Amino acid sequence: MPHFTVVPVKDRAQSSYDSLEGINWVDYRDTGQDNHDHQDTVNSPFLNSAHAANKKNDFYDRNLALFEEELDIRPKVSSLLSRLVNYTNITQGAKEHEEEESAEASRRKTPKSPNMGTLMGVYLPCLQNIFGVILFLRLTWIVGMAGIMQSLLIVLMCCSCTMLTAISMSAIATNGVVPAGGAYFMISRSLGPEFGGAVGLCFYLGTTFASAMYILGAIEIFLKYLVPQAAIFHGTDPLGSDSAMLNNMRVYGSICLTLMAVVVFVGVRYVNKLASLFLACVIISIVSIYAGAIKSMTHPPEFPICMLGNRTLVRDRFDVCAKTVIQGNITVPSQLWERFCLPGNMSSAQCDDYFIQNNVTEIQGIPGLACVSLLENMWGNYLQKGEILEKAGLQSVDTHGALDNFGMYVSADIATSFTLLVGIFFPSATGIMAGSNRSGDLRDAQKSIPVGTILAITTTSLVYLSSVVLFGSCIEGVVLRDKFGDAVRKNLVVGTLSWPSPWVIVIGSFFSTVGAGLQSLTGAPRLLQAIAKDNIIPFLRVFGHGKTNGEPTWALLLTGLIAELGILIASLDMVAPILSMFFLMCYLFVNLACAVQTLLRTPNWRPRFKYYHWALSFLGMSMCLALMFISSWYYAIVAMGIAGMIYKYIEYQGAEKEWGDGIRGLSLSAARYALLRLEVGPPHTKNWRPQLLVLLKLDEDLHVKYPRLLTFASQLKAGKGLTIVGSVIQGNFLDSYGEMQAAEQAIKNMMEIERVKGFCQVVVASKVREGIVHLIQSCGLGGMKHNTVVMGWPYGWRQSEDPRAWKTFINTVRCTTAAHLALMVPKNVSFYPSNHERFTDGNIDVWWIVHDGGMLMLLPFLLKQHKVWRKCKMRIFTVAQMDDNSIQMKKDLATFLYQLRIEAEVEVVEMHDSDISAYTYERTLMMEQRSQMLRQMRLSSAERQREVDQSNVRRMHTAVKLNEVIVNRSHDARLVLLNMPGPPRNADGDENYMEFLEVLTEGLERVLLVRGGGREVITIYS
Amino acid sequence: MPHFTVVPVKDRAQSSYDSLEGINWVDYRDTGQDNHDHQDTVNSPFLNSAHAANKKNDFYDRNLALFEEELDIRPKVSSLLSRLVNYTNITQGAKEHEEEESAEASRRKTPKSPNMGTLMGVYLPCLQNIFGVILFLRLTWIVGMAGIMQSLLIVLMCCSCTMLTAISMSAIATNGVVPAGGAYFMISRSLGPEFGGAVGLCFYLGTTFASAMYILGAIEIFLKYLVPQAAIFHGTDPLGSDSAMLNNMRVYGSICLTLMAVVVFVGVRYVNKLASLFLACVIISIVSIYAGAIKSMTHPPEFPICMLGNRTLVRDRFDVCAKTVIQGNITVPSQLWERFCLPGNMSSAQCDDYFIQNNVTEIQGIPGLACVSLLENMWGNYLQKGEILEKAGLQSVDTHGALDNFGMYVSADIATSFTLLVGIFFPSATGIMAGSNRSGDLRDAQKSIPVGTILAITTTSLVYLSSVVLFGSCIEGVVLRDKFGDAVRKNLVVGTLSWPSPWVIVIGSFFSTVGAGLQSLTGAPRLLQAIAKDNIIPFLRVFGHGKTNGEPTWALLLTGLIAELGILIASLDMVAPILSMFFLMCYLFVNLACAVQTLLRTPNWRPRFKYYHWALSFLGMSMCLALMFISSWYYAIVAMGIAGMIYKYIEYQGAEKEWGDGIRGLSLSAARYALLRLEVGPPHTKNWRPQLLVLLKLDEDLHVKYPRLLTFASQLKAGKGLTIVGSVIQGNFLDSYGEMQAAEQAIKNMMEIERVKGFCQVVVASKVREGIVHLIQSCGLGGMKHNTVVMGWPYGWRQSEDPRAWKTFINTVRCTTAAHLALMVPKNVSFYPSNHERFTDGNIDVWWIVHDGGMLMLLPFLLKQHKVWRKCKMRIFTVAQMDDNSIQMKKDLATFLYQLRIEAEVEVVEMHDSDISAYTYERTLMMEQRSQMLRQMRLSSAERQREVDQSNVRRMHTAVKLNEVIVNRSHDARLVLLNMPGPPRNADGDENYMEFLEVLTEGLERVLLVRGGGREVITIYS
Repeated sequence: MPHFTVVPVKDRAQSSYDSLEGINWVDYRDTGQDNHDHQDTVNSPFLNSAHAANKKNDFYDRNLALFEEELDIRPKVSSLLSRLVNYTNITQGAKEHEEEESAEASRRKTPKSPNMGTLMGVYLPCLQNIFGVILFLRLTWIVGMAGIMQSLLIVLMCCSCTMLTAISMSAIATNGVVPAGGAYFMISRSLGPEFGGAVGLCFYLGTTFASAMYILGAIEIFLKYLVPQAAIFHGTDPLGSDSAMLNNMRVYGSICLTLMAVVVFVGVRYVNKLASLFLACVIISIVSIYAGAIKSMTHPPEFPICMLGNRTLVRDRFDVCAKTVIQGNITVPSQLWERFCLPGNMSSAQCDDYFIQNNVTEIQGIPGLACVSLLENMWGNYLQKGEILEKAGLQSVDTHGALDNFGMYVSADIATSFTLLVGIFFPSATGIMAGSNRSGDLRDAQKSIPVGTILAITTTSLVYLSSVVLFGSCIEGVVLRDKFGDAVRKNLVVGTLSWPSPWVIVIGSFFSTVGAGLQSLTGAPRLLQAIAKDNIIPFLRVFGHGKTNGEPTWALLLTGLIAELGILIASLDMVAPILSMFFLMCYLFVNLACAVQTLLRTPNWRPRFKYYHWALSFLGMSMCLALMFISSWYYAIVAMGIAGMIYKYIEYQGAEKEWGDGIRGLSLSAARYALLRLEVGPPHTKNWRPQLLVLLKLDEDLHVKYPRLLTFASQLKAGKGLTIVGSVIQGNFLDSYGEMQAAEQAIKNMMEIERVKGFCQVVVASKVREGIVHLIQSCGLGGMKHNTVVMGWPYGWRQSEDPRAWKTFINTVRCTTAAHLALMVPKNVSFYPSNHERFTDGNIDVWWIVHDGGMLMLLPFLLKQHKVWRKCKMRIFTVAQMDDNSIQMKKDLATFLYQLRIEAEVEVVEMHDSDISAYTYERTLMMEQRSQMLRQMRLSSAERQREVDQSNVRRMHTAVKLNEVIVNRSHDARLVLLNMPGPPRNADGDENYMEFLEVLTEGLERVLLVRGGGREVITIYS
Repeated sequence: MPHFTVVPVKDRAQSSYDSLEGINWVDYRDTGQDNHDHQDTVNSPFLNSAHAANKKNDFYDRNLALFEEELDIRPKVSSLLSRLVNYTNITQGAKEHEEEESAEASRRKTPKSPNMGTLMGVYLPCLQNIFGVILFLRLTWIVGMAGIMQSLLIVLMCCSCTMLTAISMSAIATNGVVPAGGAYFMISRSLGPEFGGAVGLCFYLGTTFASAMYILGAIEIFLKYLVPQAAIFHGTDPLGSDSAMLNNMRVYGSICLTLMAVVVFVGVRYVNKLASLFLACVIISIVSIYAGAIKSMTHPPEFPICMLGNRTLVRDRFDVCAKTVIQGNITVPSQLWERFCLPGNMSSAQCDDYFIQNNVTEIQGIPGLACVSLLENMWGNYLQKGEILEKAGLQSVDTHGALDNFGMYVSADIATSFTLLVGIFFPSATGIMAGSNRSGDLRDAQKSIPVGTILAITTTSLVYLSSVVLFGSCIEGVVLRDKFGDAVRKNLVVGTLSWPSPWVIVIGSFFSTVGAGLQSLTGAPRLLQAIAKDNIIPFLRVFGHGKTNGEPTWALLLTGLIAELGILIASLDMVAPILSMFFLMCYLFVNLACAVQTLLRTPNWRPRFKYYHWALSFLGMSMCLALMFISSWYYAIVAMGIAGMIYKYIEYQGAEKEWGDGIRGLSLSAARYALLRLEVGPPHTKNWRPQLLVLLKLDEDLHVKYPRLLTFASQLKAGKGLTIVGSVIQGNFLDSYGEMQAAEQAIKNMMEIERVKGFCQVVVASKVREGIVHLIQSCGLGGMKHNTVVMGWPYGWRQSEDPRAWKTFINTVRCTTAAHLALMVPKNVSFYPSNHERFTDGNIDVWWIVHDGGMLMLLPFLLKQHKVWRKCKMRIFTVAQMDDNSIQMKKDLATFLYQLRIEAEVEVVEMHDSDISAYTYERTLMMEQRSQMLRQMRLSSAERQREVDQSNVRRMHTAVKLNEVIVNRSHDARLVLLNMPGPPRNADGDENYMEFLEVLTEGLERVLLVRGGGREVITIYS
């Protein structure tokens, strides 16, 4: 019997709740994303004055002089504590904000301090919400169909499911101050917006269908037991009467729904006032059942049932339970006779075969509390639709003619099974959230909610269990199975047992059911409004607005429409499983939230309620899931589908709420776990993929100097693998935190534009060189480390007087080698294609001069995965010398590439030893003059100079010759990949090294210089 | 029809395969974990000479002078290529190693170059392995039961499942050179040891049960159709005859299995020789079916069936199909009559009711290829066990007496359903791995495997599909449903259709089935041996050894035992679903491997076979799963359970194999994905947990100086959350890579000992201070960043002449503040408890002087989660001053802690302003003298000196007074937590700051100084 206590939720209440989640005075950092938090903080009146006050009072405090430098940003404990008191008041009095906002609110509700105790605040509301229509209308029938044992099982299953959920909920509810808002807030704040929204809507739909169920229940009592004459439609035949009844339900249900909606709209405050009346009705009814059961031990009530053979007869269609009556000494056919036989004669030939061959007997409907019926009703007796209720003990002569009901036998109106009954009973166990929904009104919510809820569940469970046994042992089986009391003159079956009169229960249950319906209809729109105001589900936004009278009119309208759907279904037995599903979904997530938080051991997970355990929550979760699938697997799938769609929708809408939910803790744990799993050395060659560290240069305004480096990185990755973008700011870390963050933001923006998924790391260092060394050393974490460095070419090195630019470059090359990292230097990176260009033809040329791990082969393959390069062809050139057999080499190379599964044209370029040209000498001379100028005095001996010279000429010769060949073959290539020679071991040759690289790449538009990281990155093996 | 081609797998072949996976010359790093790789590399004879050769030939190479510094570690392309050729030879000739090892091997198998083409190497073996016993023994029956349409569906489902698997397998098989080893190697190398082992064993069990199935099939043919007289057991009644037959199967099956095992043991080479004979049998049989079907169009074979009413009669129990026969003009009862009536008279009264009321007719068993029977057999006709085969078209008068079979009617021996038939048919689609198992013998495996396998599947699918239609359209329904041909005089049903004689098929299928059984029995032990030699499943190790004759004797024995289990089941229809499960598991994983690798886009995933797609693999995977659950959900669960247990076992045994599997790529991707999801700013207060950066000091020998820092970190985390352990080595990065790695190893070892789960980061920096700043800046990645720094106290700072120690300390404090990180400094960390100690009582005292985020409250809570501290009580002290209302403060504090859900004793200590004591002045003087001595000339004006003095006295006063109070209250506390004062803004006061901290903590055994990170870490809200 789930419904809602009226807890209005207001805009401001919510936002101030959000802002109060952390005590945020001290967050003096200036990150962009924290801005809205700041604003909230600033808005709170009592947080603002902290700075000034502290400074005045405490700065010259003698006893804390040691901390005086702190006190302007860190509050003294005494001042914090005095503020906390206000704080608490304000929190729990969040309603006070409402008054400021809407005048109506203050009229409706005067601000009162939360002062409700466990009994009034939690126990009784829970009790009232849990007990419900099913107990009165269906429990006897369930006992009859499933038997006592299976009924006990059903009750136990449902109640233990809610008990476990209550335990999980207690843990969640006592994990900190819960401001007004109730269960939905608790769940959404501990599971995050996506799950929270999905669960909230499930809860809403459940509550809405619950209102439909209550209305149907009320109408059923009204039409079946109170005023049967009011029926509009009348069936002609038994089959028709079923559908006529459904139509009656539809008509009266719709009328009732409309009336109730109007009541809720105009007089919501009366609904709450009447809650205790409704509870009284329930309690009186239950007491009357117990009283009746006890009385039946000695004086069982008179409810005779008329049986024909072993078949139960509908009792209100005839007067005397006999075949014949003696009217003035003449035996004449009874009314019963006339029903079964052709009218007007006593000849048995014209009668129904079964009627003739079997006796009419009358038995006690309520034999009274005794073991006999207990044993009879012990085991299940499920019926098919239309099957006639039979009493096992009675004699019956079967006739094999076609069965005719004559409208005289009591028969099952639906087919029953254990699983169906579970779905129908479950709503009787719901309503456990009633206490936590009142969290805002409780004096000590953290104590009252667990105790009250668990006590209420215990009470109701005991009542249900004892009722099952009582019903089973007091009432005759055929009466129990008789859903609408046809055999006992259309009395409510449970009413027959009650004392002093069946009317106590009929009227009591009618009012309590109407009341429950009203409460559901009041609670559901408010829940919807609360969800809508959280603004996580955009299309619900309209339902967040209250009308001038403060009522959520639109939400009420939607609720009414959905409830009308339930009413059109018209059958209590069909609606109950639907709402079971939604409540079970909701409970499932409560258990999930508790289990996840317990397992994650977030430091903030410190519920005051200690008697929870993740295993219990997990068991509860499993039971919810099991019950869902037991009661109806297709409803379960539909409900999960709905919840899943809501989840995805909220995720798609990108809810930006940060509620500090457990799910985020989960992803943190997942990331940590995944990283820890990884850390077992470098990956196998087969798993090697470039994990880039892109070293970016920033200009003075912290803009990225060569964004094409990022473009290139994104093209290389085609969206997969790790990319870390690093940059160095020159300065002192203590002063440059802001600058660092600005740079990080700039880089992140650029990464967004260039569609590089990855991480950004800006460091402040006194020298750029130092910063780069540290980036190369310490970027990444565990197994997620870069294995390849991408850096730009120091374009101005020749012009610049400052050798630092190229010194840094060469130092970085050395560092990458020392750290066993691969290196890529795209030269003329500005000419590289953007992500929008498409090369429709052309080649990517690889000049494979030395083999250092296969990077040269792998890179074009990776580039070709990207749209920009897809249509380029790959060509591999290699250089054959005098003593090489170039034809064999080409064949071998082709085989090798075939085995590498890389498609490429293969060419072997023969380079014969030749004399060193005059041009080479000239270039060498130019280069040496330049470098000599720069480091005149550093060299000591002429001997050494000559040695270097000799080597320089040879190197220059290589560079010139190779460049000649490359330009000759690849001048029109889209991209040329080239082995990057290593820097000289001796730092003296550094300038020359730059010159060699320049000569090597002269005349080529786009060159990518590549150095392997000292390990194989490509393999022919599978 | 799955079995194995004989591909012996040898120890050395495997190890050399492993070593060849990467071309590892260039891996010159000296990490510990790479050692075994190195050794392998060094062991390979052709890799060893590389260095020397290169140096000699290439160093003075003119044309490559630019690269000369590289060439000693990076090979020139031409020399690489020439080596690659040998390399390829050696790889594919891995068998050559075997000969060295065992003399037998060379006798058995001469080293031959791989030279098989697609047809002989893949297509025909696949064909032979796929076609099998089910086609001959069960396909007619399946068509009869399920009808043509559903049979087509069954065939299509099974064949498309294997087709999709073949596509995935082709992609895996063409992703690089597959050395000898086949399917198991491919799967295990692309899915890793855990999955590989599980799949391998599934495949093994499948193959083993397949051998049992073949043996059962062969015995069935033998006993039913070839030599029925050989039956040992004879049933007395129809029910008994079933179990007698099963016993016959068991006895003959076991004999047959023993014989076959002996054949395999002594003459494995003949088995392979006979393969083509077996294939010929299959092909001839199939051709004879087609021939028979065509012939039946004009001359249907004579197979009359005798019907009584619409019931089919077992044909071999009587002679004439009539109720009476005319013997010499007298009508006498036929044999049939005598079977149904009491013997000796012609009166119908003594006869079976049904026999009397219905006519005996004779119809054509094989009406011949025509539309009539096609239509009749179109739809399914599933039977219950014992149900009599009835022909729908014939007249029948039902009698309602109890049904007596008389042993005369043909009835169903098992209950059939669509799902059952799927499980029975599936083995006919298996065997698709036969081609890839021969990978080592193929000339061009990368072309042959896909083409051959897919063609073979296409062929077999077409044969199955056409057979279904042919059977349905040529054979009478009751004959089709007649599993053992009882109605056609115990002929093999498919034999009745064949031309020229039923014996062609009976004999053909017998031999092919025996052959298939032999092959399975040969293949399975070898597969087991291969798995055992991989050494991932320790308890299988014994099966890795071959006996002196090279045969895997133990493996054969185990295989025989498992196959015997299958034979004891005795029914083909029961064994088939079992092996279906195992094969489906295996196929599922093949598809999974392909899908995962495609989705991960590992650069190394470049299959030559291009026509794969992850969606196809995924579809294949789903189909495998669906087929498993369709054919038998409990077998499916058992099979998955077995696979799961193997997986867990291998994982538990900690297989250290690094095969470069896709699963590792998966965890890399998962880690990356999880990290990328995280990066959205700092977590909510509710999710805050300490993520530690522990700064360790190393001594000269790279040992951890204060390992208790790690102990403390592990106690704080209780196993959860991020921990990064950082350390700085002073030096030049270019020279210190080895030292860095050694340090990292040392720290990792220490982390292992202290049970700290986390990451380690050692950086080399020219100054320790610089290194620490960089660690603080750049440790962690994305959302996985530290938020708290843990560092030790610079103990020797007073004694040391070198101010760098404490300068570094204070600088680190400043840096953490600048980086908004929290800081913890455990003082006297050596006195902190080890992880084995247990405090049984005592307090953790918190001195909460200023509020900086709640760290002080959170830390004891976290510590108390750890066993060491669990029994300690927490006390919170705060200091009240003159103007504070200490009683109210205490109440507020208690409320606050209640709302924080932290259990602690609360005390407010009143500290009244007092005069500064002489002791304070004395301490200040001492301190100032000391610092003055150290920085005599740095100060400029006396004015400033005095100003500082004044402040120093006040601070010292605080320190002394606070220390007094703390020692007074907490001298016996287990741990004292204390706000750490911030360092002075002005660097001049640094020495004094150290002195203040010393005074503040004097006389306390264990102190933890704590500074917040500038944000709240604890909240009262849920």
